[in-house]
Amino acid sequence: MTSKTPKDSLTIMNELVLPNDTNTLNNLMGGRLLHWMDIAAAISAQKHCNRIVVTASVDNVSFKHSIKLGDVVTIEARVSRAFSTSVEVRLDIWAQNIPSGTLIRSNEAYYTFVALDNDGHKVTVPELIPETAEETELYNGALRRRQLRLILSGKMKADDATELKALFFSEQK
Amino acid sequence: MTSKTPKDSLTIMNELVLPNDTNTLNNLMGGRLLHWMDIAAAISAQKHCNRIVVTASVDNVSFKHSIKLGDVVTIEARVSRAFSTSVEVRLDIWAQNIPSGTLIRSNEAYYTFVALDNDGHKVTVPELIPETAEETELYNGALRRRQLRLILSGKMKADDATELKALFFSEQK
Amino acid sequence: MTSKTPKDSLTIMNELVLPNDTNTLNNLMGGRLLHWMDIAAAISAQKHCNRIVVTASVDNVSFKHSIKLGDVVTIEARVSRAFSTSVEVRLDIWAQNIPSGTLIRSNEAYYTFVALDNDGHKVTVPELIPETAEETELYNGALRRRQLRLILSGKMKADDATELKALFFSEQK
Amino acid sequence: MTSKTPKDSLTIMNELVLPNDTNTLNNLMGGRLLHWMDIAAAISAQKHCNRIVVTASVDNVSFKHSIKLGDVVTIEARVSRAFSTSVEVRLDIWAQNIPSGTLIRSNEAYYTFVALDNDGHKVTVPELIPETAEETELYNGALRRRQLRLILSGKMKADDATELKALFFSEQK
Amino acid sequence: MTSKTPKDSLTIMNELVLPNDTNTLNNLMGGRLLHWMDIAAAISAQKHCNRIVVTASVDNVSFKHSIKLGDVVTIEARVSRAFSTSVEVRLDIWAQNIPSGTLIRSNEAYYTFVALDNDGHKVTVPELIPETAEETELYNGALRRRQLRLILSGKMKADDATELKALFFSEQK
Amino acid sequence: MTSKTPKDSLTIMNELVLPNDTNTLNNLMGGRLLHWMDIAAAISAQKHCNRIVVTASVDNVSFKHSIKLGDVVTIEARVSRAFSTSVEVRLDIWAQNIPSGTLIRSNEAYYTFVALDNDGHKVTVPELIPETAEETELYNGALRRRQLRLILSGKMKADDATELKALFFSEQK
Repeated sequence: MTSKTPKDSLTIMNELVLPNDTNTLNNLMGGRLLHWMDIAAAISAQKHCNRIVVTASVDNVSFKHSIKLGDVVTIEARVSRAFSTSVEVRLDIWAQNIPSGTLIRSNEAYYTFVALDNDGHKVTVPELIPETAEETELYNGALRRRQLRLILSGKMKADDATELKALFFSEQK
Repeated sequence: MTSKTPKDSLTIMNELVLPNDTNTLNNLMGGRLLHWMDIAAAISAQKHCNRIVVTASVDNVSFKHSIKLGDVVTIEARVSRAFSTSVEVRLDIWAQNIPSGTLIRSNEAYYTFVALDNDGHKVTVPELIPETAEETELYNGALRRRQLRLILSGKMKADDATELKALFFSEQK
Repeated sequence: MTSKTPKDSLTIMNELVLPNDTNTLNNLMGGRLLHWMDIAAAISAQKHCNRIVVTASVDNVSFKHSIKLGDVVTIEARVSRAFSTSVEVRLDIWAQNIPSGTLIRSNEAYYTFVALDNDGHKVTVPELIPETAEETELYNGALRRRQLRLILSGKMKADDATELKALFFSEQK
Repeated sequence: MTSKTPKDSLTIMNELVLPNDTNTLNNLMGGRLLHWMDIAAAISAQKHCNRIVVTASVDNVSFKHSIKLGDVVTIEARVSRAFSTSVEVRLDIWAQNIPSGTLIRSNEAYYTFVALDNDGHKVTVPELIPETAEETELYNGALRRRQLRLILSGKMKADDATELKALFFSEQK
Repeated sequence: MTSKTPKDSLTIMNELVLPNDTNTLNNLMGGRLLHWMDIAAAISAQKHCNRIVVTASVDNVSFKHSIKLGDVVTIEARVSRAFSTSVEVRLDIWAQNIPSGTLIRSNEAYYTFVALDNDGHKVTVPELIPETAEETELYNGALRRRQLRLILSGKMKADDATELKALFFSEQK
Repeated sequence: MTSKTPKDSLTIMNELVLPNDTNTLNNLMGGRLLHWMDIAAAISAQKHCNRIVVTASVDNVSFKHSIKLGDVVTIEARVSRAFSTSVEVRLDIWAQNIPSGTLIRSNEAYYTFVALDNDGHKVTVPELIPETAEETELYNGALRRRQLRLILSGKMKADDATELKALFFSEQK
């Protein structure tokens, strides 16, 4: 099983915001965006794993700007780190207004997926090798995010989360 | 503007898992569930605020069990705390297998919503008064979860998150 | 096979009226509501029978008030009587306006379902034991509604519908 | 406002039964069919009225045969009688199996619609003139069905339903 | 395998243009119409072949008029010619405005389908026998359209397309 | 109004083939793909024009390979030539099998769009400047494709289509 790079799993999705995706103020509903993000991320994870994958978790997502009816939503997904039987996928989301052409950055997010064989059992996934400086930073940060996930789901004690402590008790970001 | 209790915003949703909600292993896709959860939570927030609301954030969600084609998903949503112009909604999700009748707890989650007037401006929302011990615990925990949201979205420095530190780095749970 | 109460099959559904559910006057289309009602009722019937069920009939439904885009529709379904291989499900439907909070009663309805095994054959279903006075009244009325269904589908002669005659042609009611 | 014939409002719909329309036994769900029937009937009513219409009621519907995934559903709708501001639409539904080509009659139904102007007020609709013997029989039966609707929705006392009594206390059908 | 006439495969579809089918100017999107046309044509091809069919190609389609939200789209499909394992289906599309009742002709189109057995292999289809003058003209024109498809998909050299040359170098048409 | 390059309008869409997109042999239905292609192409045209656009035509499309349930469909769209008030968009479509990772080229297509202002009137669009050799070839071929569209829709006589004749009736290809 050969290792892969983030580029190998790059997945781009463009979606047009239609009436049924919006509330009565014509704003895209968050749940619809979370649904699109999950599909984009799952496709990306499948490209990395060459396996069917299931969503294991989504990290905290903040929606900073409202996206409007008729806007074009662009989602970029790529694997940021592989663990033994799971992968973390990083998502970047933009919204483009037609006709002004203005492109705003909506938000980013992390989804994790578990890879399964045809009987539904977990299987080992290829390693991820980051290439650029940005990819390496995402790769390194994945450990901290993983510890936070484990603490929040009750599977790790906070005092054991050495990586995460660095986030809370130092200047580095 | 009179205050409300969690009971006032209780919203229950039951959904049948249909083929288009599943992957090729017949497992419910996470994004579809996140979408349903957002709608249930938004209805709950609207019952509390009597306003149109938009999703501001979703906290870390872990999916512990696979939910299958034909299962019935039950979502319970109720407001756990109100802030000045936003509310936090707590969600509890179960999946029931037909025909065995087995009910499994799938996961819990927190969504936050901002209340808007008809011009799209933020408006003050009613206070939430918890009644039961469980509701009071959710109410108190909302501050910690809010600090985590602010840190993760870069709006608060970790060292200032006194509530959160208590959660992570002491014996109490 | 142990008997069940109406409470055991109580199923609540909340749905947000979205643009595609409405006509060009922004009124919820009746067929969309009938579709939601069928899903809620089928879930309720499945909770009672622990079996896959198929819709056998829907009784006369009158829509008294228009429901608007953005309203929240609440559907409550519970089994009102079990026959040998089928159940009657009673539905109560409300619509809530956001932001006024006004809750109007939309309509009620009765759907019947047949329970099937995995090969698609009819199977015996558990008995229903009504508990409250209201549940008992619904239980008793089920015979009259059943006679009407049989007459309307040509399976019973009107003169034999003794229960139904009592409903239509006497002072009581 | 010139009168119209049933032929003027004839509306035919063909739908392919797709996975999301079916339960886990691959049977078309009743609610999905009721939804299609409502759309077909509403189009027919609109062709008669040249107005936007809203569903006022659906009469008792019995589903006699299961319709399967991949079948073609054919719905024929035409106005059977016009009242002052409403119309009754008669529906006939068939299901065709591919590849055998077998065509089974699924069921028939009656939907009623109220015609509205652009402000949502009721408006008078054109008269319906039946042409064939079958159309005349449907036209005449509409009075009985209307009395049954009024009784079932509590708007008429059973003793006043002279047309309907004929159904219960005579040999005629 | 007995031959069939165009009448045998006549398939009519009526669809109501809903919000999600339109762009922000309330015009029906072309892709939604192409989707409906494909379903109508596939049903027609299946009625002719009594087989599952897959779309092989769609010929050049021009949309001449905008169709609006709330309009009723009528699609008529019928097989225009059968080849050994495929059929060409002719489609005629109209749009009707409610309330004016104005019916405009939107466009026509040709879809071709290949018939498959249950293992997905191509199978021979029944012959088509045109009956009317119009059906005969469509039947004859099918050869020219087929040559154009073969040239455009690189499977035939233009110089060999004797039927098509007649289109380009003569007054007839 | 500054001119643009094909790169400026590049739009990538990735879609997962779900059950409702397929026939009973689990093959993606052509109409669903034509719908996705239209959305991708419309987004591309809107990026070029900074205007709302409506589909004017789709050129002959041939589907060479079946795409299966669970496959990932990738659509790349970019403007190939701008005319005065319309643009031609070139689409390239691939399908990727999970888990094998095999990527097959499905087909290519051309959609044309007309740009509209907010009142629905046609407006002038920016010029397209091809940059690469491939883009220049697509740019030049657009004239021939346009002549074919005009002939097929009856707006040009075949004898006047000098560009097209060069394509069909000479050795060059």
